[in-house]
Amino acid sequence: MALIVQKFGGSSVADVACMQRVACRIRDAKQAGNQLVVVVSAMGDTTDDLIALAKQINPRPADREMDMLMSTGEVISSSILTMALHALGEEAVSLTGPQAGIYTDEIHTKAKIRDIRPDLIRHHLDRGCVVIVAGFQGLTPAGEIATLGRGGSDTTAVALAAAIQADRCQIFTDVDGVYTTDPRMVKEARKLDVIAYDEMLELASLGAKVLQSRSVEFAKKYNVELEVLSSFTGNPGTVVTGEVKEMEDIFVRGVAADINQAKVTLQAVPDQPGIAARIFKQLAAEAINVDMIVQNVSEQGSTDLSFTVPEDDLVRVRGCVDKLCIDVGARGATYDDKIAKVSIVGVGMRSHSGIAFKMFDALAQNDINIEMISTSEIKISVVIERSRALDAVRILHESFELQGAPA
Amino acid sequence: MALIVQKFGGSSVADVACMQRVACRIRDAKQAGNQLVVVVSAMGDTTDDLIALAKQINPRPADREMDMLMSTGEVISSSILTMALHALGEEAVSLTGPQAGIYTDEIHTKAKIRDIRPDLIRHHLDRGCVVIVAGFQGLTPAGEIATLGRGGSDTTAVALAAAIQADRCQIFTDVDGVYTTDPRMVKEARKLDVIAYDEMLELASLGAKVLQSRSVEFAKKYNVELEVLSSFTGNPGTVVTGEVKEMEDIFVRGVAADINQAKVTLQAVPDQPGIAARIFKQLAAEAINVDMIVQNVSEQGSTDLSFTVPEDDLVRVRGCVDKLCIDVGARGATYDDKIAKVSIVGVGMRSHSGIAFKMFDALAQNDINIEMISTSEIKISVVIERSRALDAVRILHESFELQGAPA
Repeated sequence: MALIVQKFGGSSVADVACMQRVACRIRDAKQAGNQLVVVVSAMGDTTDDLIALAKQINPRPADREMDMLMSTGEVISSSILTMALHALGEEAVSLTGPQAGIYTDEIHTKAKIRDIRPDLIRHHLDRGCVVIVAGFQGLTPAGEIATLGRGGSDTTAVALAAAIQADRCQIFTDVDGVYTTDPRMVKEARKLDVIAYDEMLELASLGAKVLQSRSVEFAKKYNVELEVLSSFTGNPGTVVTGEVKEMEDIFVRGVAADINQAKVTLQAVPDQPGIAARIFKQLAAEAINVDMIVQNVSEQGSTDLSFTVPEDDLVRVRGCVDKLCIDVGARGATYDDKIAKVSIVGVGMRSHSGIAFKMFDALAQNDINIEMISTSEIKISVVIERSRALDAVRILHESFELQGAPA
Repeated sequence: MALIVQKFGGSSVADVACMQRVACRIRDAKQAGNQLVVVVSAMGDTTDDLIALAKQINPRPADREMDMLMSTGEVISSSILTMALHALGEEAVSLTGPQAGIYTDEIHTKAKIRDIRPDLIRHHLDRGCVVIVAGFQGLTPAGEIATLGRGGSDTTAVALAAAIQADRCQIFTDVDGVYTTDPRMVKEARKLDVIAYDEMLELASLGAKVLQSRSVEFAKKYNVELEVLSSFTGNPGTVVTGEVKEMEDIFVRGVAADINQAKVTLQAVPDQPGIAARIFKQLAAEAINVDMIVQNVSEQGSTDLSFTVPEDDLVRVRGCVDKLCIDVGARGATYDDKIAKVSIVGVGMRSHSGIAFKMFDALAQNDINIEMISTSEIKISVVIERSRALDAVRILHESFELQGAPA
C-alpha cells in the first residue's frame, strides 16, 4: 500500500466525461490498495471565464477580490469530482485549500505556501476516504483566501505530498510525460522515462510547459518523487527524481526553445563599478524578469550590455531602459523581438567536455548565427534569429542523438 | 446616518449590467450617509446550472458536497459586486458566509443559523467599507460549509440585520413589493405600503413567493424592520413590521392561492384515541409536510380524515397512506390532485366578526364549492376545485374591496 498524491489539471477535468474518466482512474488506484489525496484544478475554461467576467466589471480588479473569485473554480471541480467518486461507490470528501490546512503568505494572486497542517486530510485518509483538495489556494495569516498563481495546483500537490510524506506525487495532464523536445516541433521527440529535478527545472524555465518550476523546486527540496503522466492514456509517464549516477551517462537530456523573448542591448555603457547593478535594480523595481545577461567589452572605457526579457514586457522595458540610458550615460539602446533562445540540458554535461563545442559546431554547419551564449552547469543556451529556432531544435535533437538515446 | 442591510436576489445580479445597476444603488445609499452591509445571492441561473452539473455526475449527490458546490455561486457574486463598487470608486470588501461570522447547525443543504459573530463586518464598517456578504451559507460546528436552503440569502440578510442591530433590512427583488394578491392573476392587485409580520407569514406560507417564511419569522423574532422593494425601479416598496393599532382597521390584507396541493382522505378510520397520532407520526417520519387537516364524523364508530400535502409529494404519500390504511383499519384512501387552497389574511380579522361568513357567501354566490376549511386567528383557508382558483381569488379580492382599500 502506498500513499499517493494525484493532481489533475483543468484539461483532465474539463467536462462531465473527463470527470468520470478521472474518477475511474482514482477508483482503480484506490482499489489497488493505495491511499489517495487528489488535487484538482478548475474545470476547463472556468478560470478564464471568471477572469473575463471580472474584467467586464472592472478592468483592474483588486487582487484580494480576484482571489475570492478565482478560488471558486477549484472548489467546484473538487466537489464535482467527489460526487463522481460517490457515484462509483467510493468514499470521498472534498476540501477547500483552507480546510486542507494550506497556509500561505499574504501576497494575493501569487501567494506562496508557508505551512501545511494536514490533520484533516489525515483524519479522512485514516477513515478510508479519498481526499479531494481544491488546488491553487490557501489561507493567509489574516484569514483571507489567496491563490497561488499559475501552476498553483501543481505546487499544492507537491507541497501536500511533502507534508504527508507521500510515496509519490503524480501530475496528470494532457501530455504523456516529458519529452526530449517539444513533439509538436520535432516528430522524432521521445518521451523520457526519467529525468533529474535539475534537468526538469532547466527545461521548465526554458519554456517546456509540462511542469512549473515552482513545483519542481518544491519536489527537489523535499525529495518528492514526481511523475508526469497523461490522464487520457493510462501509460506510464516520466518520473522526475533525484540524480543517480547512471543519469550522467546521458550528456544531453533534452532540447528546448523559447520564442517569447526579446533582446535589449544598451550601447556604450560607461565601464564603471555599480553601473550594471543600477540598471538591473531599476528593472527589478519594475518587476521585469530579466533572463540572460551578457556583457561585452566594445570600446575603451565602455561596454555593450545585452539581456533578454519576456517579449510581452518589451513595451514596459523600453520605457524603463530609454530612461536608464540617460541616467547611466549609455549611448542608446536597441531592441530585437525577433529572437529565440534554444537550449540543451543534461546533468551529464557536468562530467563531459566538448558538449558546448558540439552544439555550436552543429549550429554553425547549418549557418545559424549565435547572438548570445549563456551556460550553467547542466545547460547551454544560445540566442539566435527566431526564424531559425525550429531548425536549430531539430539539428540539436539529431546531433545529440536524442531520438534514439536510451531513456 | 443609518445602518442598513440590503439584500439582492439572483435576478437583481443576473448579469454585468444588473451588477452595475446594483452597485450604483449601493453607492447612492452609501453617499447618502448610510453604513451598508449587502447580502447577495448567486447570479441569475448559477445555482440551477451548478445543480444541473452535479446531477449529470451523480443523480443523488451527497448533501455535504452539494453545499461545497452551491456555496461558490454566492462567493462569485459577492466578489464581482465588490469589484463593481471599486470601479465606482467606493471602498468595499467581500466576505464569505464563514468569514462574515455566520455559524449554522450541521444540517447540510438546509442548515439553520445558530450564531452570528459580526466582528469582521464591524471592523470593515468602521473603516468606511461597504461589506458584501455571500448569502445562503455559513460554517457548521465541524468547520464544514453549509447552505441554508431556499430563501437562504433572505435569512442571511435578516439575521445579519438582527446581529448588527441594523435600522432596516431591505430585500431587493424583481417585484415592487407585497401585493394584495398575485398581480399576474388579478390585474387590480395593489401594492401594500405596510404589512404586519404575521400577515406576511401567512401570505408567505400560502405561496406568495416574495419573502420566505423563515426570514419573516426571524425578522419578527428580532424586530427587524423589513422592506421588500424592486432593484429595478427605485420606488418605495412594502415595509414588513410589527403590528400597530391602525392595521386592525383593515379586515383583510391579502388573498393568496396555492395550486400545488393535493388532498388525501382516509375513509372510515376507526374512531379511537391515538389513531390520528399514529397516522401523522408516520407521515412526519417520511418527512411529508402535511398542511390542512380536517376530520369529519361520517359513520358510527369511524370517521373520515382529510389532509393536504404538496402535490409533488403525492407519490410518496400514496405509498405511505395505502400501508397506513391497513395498519389502522381504515376502509381505504382517496387522492385528489385537482384542488387549490385559497386564503384571506388580515390581522383585523381578530377584532371583527363576520369575515368568514362573507368569504363563504361570496364563493357560494359564484357556485364555488368549499371542500375543506381551516382557520387561524388572522387567516381563513378553503380548499376548492383547482379550476375555480383564479375565479375565487378575483371574487374575494373584489368582495373585500382590496383594489381600493387604503394601504
